[in-house]
Amino acid sequence: MRTQVAIIGAGPAGLLLSHILYLRGISSVIIEARSQSYCEARIRAGILEQGTVDILRAAGLGARMDREGLPHHGIDIAFDGGIHPISIEKYDGGRQVMAYGQTEIVKDLFRQHVDNGTVIITDAEVTAIHDIDGISPQILYRREGKDHTLNCDFVAGCDGFRGVSRKAMPTSIRNDFDLIYPYSWLGILAKATPMNKVVIYAQHPRGFALQSMRSNDISRLYIQVDNDDHVDNWSDEALWDELDVRIGVKQNRGEIIQKGITPMRSFVSEPMSSGRLFLAGDAGHIVPPTGAKGLNLAIADIALLSAAFIDFYCAESEVQLQEYSSRALRRVWKVERFSWFCTTLLHTDHRHSEFEKKLQRADMDYLLSSDAAMKSFAENYAGLPVEILPDL
Amino acid sequence: MRTQVAIIGAGPAGLLLSHILYLRGISSVIIEARSQSYCEARIRAGILEQGTVDILRAAGLGARMDREGLPHHGIDIAFDGGIHPISIEKYDGGRQVMAYGQTEIVKDLFRQHVDNGTVIITDAEVTAIHDIDGISPQILYRREGKDHTLNCDFVAGCDGFRGVSRKAMPTSIRNDFDLIYPYSWLGILAKATPMNKVVIYAQHPRGFALQSMRSNDISRLYIQVDNDDHVDNWSDEALWDELDVRIGVKQNRGEIIQKGITPMRSFVSEPMSSGRLFLAGDAGHIVPPTGAKGLNLAIADIALLSAAFIDFYCAESEVQLQEYSSRALRRVWKVERFSWFCTTLLHTDHRHSEFEKKLQRADMDYLLSSDAAMKSFAENYAGLPVEILPDL
Repeated sequence: MRTQVAIIGAGPAGLLLSHILYLRGISSVIIEARSQSYCEARIRAGILEQGTVDILRAAGLGARMDREGLPHHGIDIAFDGGIHPISIEKYDGGRQVMAYGQTEIVKDLFRQHVDNGTVIITDAEVTAIHDIDGISPQILYRREGKDHTLNCDFVAGCDGFRGVSRKAMPTSIRNDFDLIYPYSWLGILAKATPMNKVVIYAQHPRGFALQSMRSNDISRLYIQVDNDDHVDNWSDEALWDELDVRIGVKQNRGEIIQKGITPMRSFVSEPMSSGRLFLAGDAGHIVPPTGAKGLNLAIADIALLSAAFIDFYCAESEVQLQEYSSRALRRVWKVERFSWFCTTLLHTDHRHSEFEKKLQRADMDYLLSSDAAMKSFAENYAGLPVEILPDL
Repeated sequence: MRTQVAIIGAGPAGLLLSHILYLRGISSVIIEARSQSYCEARIRAGILEQGTVDILRAAGLGARMDREGLPHHGIDIAFDGGIHPISIEKYDGGRQVMAYGQTEIVKDLFRQHVDNGTVIITDAEVTAIHDIDGISPQILYRREGKDHTLNCDFVAGCDGFRGVSRKAMPTSIRNDFDLIYPYSWLGILAKATPMNKVVIYAQHPRGFALQSMRSNDISRLYIQVDNDDHVDNWSDEALWDELDVRIGVKQNRGEIIQKGITPMRSFVSEPMSSGRLFLAGDAGHIVPPTGAKGLNLAIADIALLSAAFIDFYCAESEVQLQEYSSRALRRVWKVERFSWFCTTLLHTDHRHSEFEKKLQRADMDYLLSSDAAMKSFAENYAGLPVEILPDL
């Protein structure tokens, strides 16, 4: 089999890339290790930057998002016994964020790909990526006990942090940068009406907490726990009690339908391309979930990468493809910076000296008392600009 | 001897406090451990915030500063081979900073106190501060081999980091917060015309460097060195060469008239008052010199403290005196935050992981690419507002 762009991974990044290429008449095939139903059920991020919303709309994927998504004009910060709003809309020229689950975006995209007639090879294990330095790379994969080859012009690695694409980058040029945090998130999905219309980020001496939502009926809630903590250590009641204390606002309680622990990690692999292999999203970088940047970073990568493929196929220029890695990384690092900032601003770090604890409080006090600081926060939260967008 | 406000320390804080009190008819006596000529010769800070300039002018001390000081509309940052301006004036609503040496302010103040007829007891060692919880504290001091007592209503501790005032705070209520940095500044004063009209802060892989000035003929230059480095390890030529490499702009060379190493420390002692003892300036807190906040913090403390004394003597209210510590500390911590931010943004820290080095570069890249971030930098550099100013 042969295609123009072989895409590894049917997450939001790979699915969106394939769809944008389709819109410009560029063929692609998606190879995915899991089943479609597994991909559609994965619970992940849920806060979309304005730029993510814009690109989904431009790609014709905005209908259900605009119907069911919850636009947020700002966020609230719980600190020192009070709730302090930061208006994103006011401080970032009318831009907003949208609460709409990644899992819904994936469902929308799979539905779209039925119409597009996209070849999505699920349950397929990529065993090798060959000839990324030539003009016709091959992807070898195994499905239902048989080996297959997909020939292509380019390989887009959208297969997440544990995927095979990054490992196919030549080790001689690859540099990994890594930070592990001394805390994790214990997160729940609950059948409960969210108490607050917008997300509440709570900085509390007992640890960070977050009140978010998937819909008007489903709350998404998190508390900071130690890395060696376990969901079994937390009864539902203890968890609700802890949320109430840390957020300082009594939550509506309801049936907990999912409970899990997420570690916190910052990770960047450089470069994001080699020859004809291009990484996008979690395949190239990870952020801790504070600030809700993971999905948005992936979509920004896809904006750049799809524009570069369009430039290649429609304008016969390789320049954008050559510049993809450096251009993407420059934005990635700024978003890594913001995610790190939000994380260290909001979490309680038991390694901190008394001076550092005071500094953290001063950081919050300054943020909440300065228009300039809130504007800077808002522009990062609503999303830093993407330098080149695909012409759709 | 008896006075209303006994001031320990004839640095800029103590001298300014005494003068402001004089303007409102409140008596004070200054006790200073060193001689006047020693105080006048101490080389210290040289960049004044807009608020510092304003209060000096309002107190009638602006004439020579306005004649000889050098107003700066912004700063330059040397980074990655380029010089990047940050306009303070543009980003902070027309506010500026002024290059005018602390040593000149001290000379202006001593001159003023001759006219005021202020009693300044120099070469006097304070041996004890008694009864700060009563309404008539006493300061015991020794001068020329004889013991004396100064009775007063209030004691203002303006005697710097190594002074006796902070030690007179009851240990039961005192909390010290401290951070030592893994680098120091090797600084020189040189008879050389500054190459640049405004300060250049250089972030360079070999370490931080700073080009500043005392006047149109005198350059003030610094390089980051290890804590165990020594001035003897640096020949004049090696130092000039290193400055040229790090700043990326060839400096005008000239006779080096002073050379010294300054350690970098952040320190805050809480509270800043107990009973009738009030700390101001370095007696209560230290910042690393990056961002030039030490002197400005002291002047901001004096603005608050003098306003509180005026409120007490002229409006018979103790409220401002009671709130002085918490009000001053809130601003102090924000300035500690900014000083820490500037320091960690600009210095090379050999303890940093590769991830942290990348984060530091991203911090700079973000600062230089975002109007909001530059605005936030500018408002801190030109000086955060002081909540209450003395009515002069």
